[in-house]
Amino acid sequence: MECVLRPCRAEDCAEVVRMIKELAEFEKLPDQVEISDQVLREDGFANNPFYRCLVAEVPPEHRSRDGHTVVGYGLYFFTYSTWKGRNIYMEDLYVMPEFRGKGIGKKLMSKIAEIGVENRCSQMKFVVLDWNRAAIDFYQGHGAVDLTAAEGWHFFHLEGDALKQLARGQLGQ
Amino acid sequence: MECVLRPCRAEDCAEVVRMIKELAEFEKLPDQVEISDQVLREDGFANNPFYRCLVAEVPPEHRSRDGHTVVGYGLYFFTYSTWKGRNIYMEDLYVMPEFRGKGIGKKLMSKIAEIGVENRCSQMKFVVLDWNRAAIDFYQGHGAVDLTAAEGWHFFHLEGDALKQLARGQLGQ
Repeated sequence: MECVLRPCRAEDCAEVVRMIKELAEFEKLPDQVEISDQVLREDGFANNPFYRCLVAEVPPEHRSRDGHTVVGYGLYFFTYSTWKGRNIYMEDLYVMPEFRGKGIGKKLMSKIAEIGVENRCSQMKFVVLDWNRAAIDFYQGHGAVDLTAAEGWHFFHLEGDALKQLARGQLGQ
Repeated sequence: MECVLRPCRAEDCAEVVRMIKELAEFEKLPDQVEISDQVLREDGFANNPFYRCLVAEVPPEHRSRDGHTVVGYGLYFFTYSTWKGRNIYMEDLYVMPEFRGKGIGKKLMSKIAEIGVENRCSQMKFVVLDWNRAAIDFYQGHGAVDLTAAEGWHFFHLEGDALKQLARGQLGQ
């Protein structure tokens, strides 16, 4: 089946938000999605975009059962390793269930890797839920290494009031 | 003790590389450091910097036993969450052992949080080694949450030949 990858445009953001929600449902964490179409547009299509995104599009005759032609996305940005220099970080990789098994996810991931290599990135990084065996097998099949298992890296965040207090210098402990 | 935080300048990169290596020694992964002073300069001080960095500096009369006045650093960049929008990512936070216990690490982390909040970031993210109990206690004392333990997120990377093959579309499996 014909499927084209192209950069996400501002007018695609509503479709990307739809798929962000579908992915969060699959990841069993749907309540965490707070993003809106408008915020995604502002942050991705201003002067200094916070992310970049590719979408996978099928022709109208192959649209999904509920009428979508944008059927997958890969969202990424550049980060940095003080050990190895430039990195490309793949925040999300998603293909709608009815379009899986056609190589679309591989094409998206390959394109993100290509953009990374073109920009002299030495690593692609991403996080995966430990119970998502299909995704882990897919990534490891392409040579990815689980750094949490191999070296013990744990992923932390600080948000909400804790972040604001820290920012104000009202330090805990 | 007087200790000033200021943005890293290009001419500080040699001192930052020295501390990157000290931190990697402490983390028991010194062989992974491939960065050079020159690459760190190029990536941080060109038109579109890949990272930003704060250094902690003491006056000459308080310099370290081996003569350093730049005694700590915090290296960060902006990333993105498709669930919650803008993030600030703290790649490294380091204070030389002889300057610990004076609140320098807290000041660096607080300043990075402040920069995040000013830029409408909803989260600060970072990774920590699971055996580094002192660091985990420090971060959790400020309200940080271990997302690997809480939700099962594992941190992956793909590098070297695996990344190049993926970029060329020579896909595994």
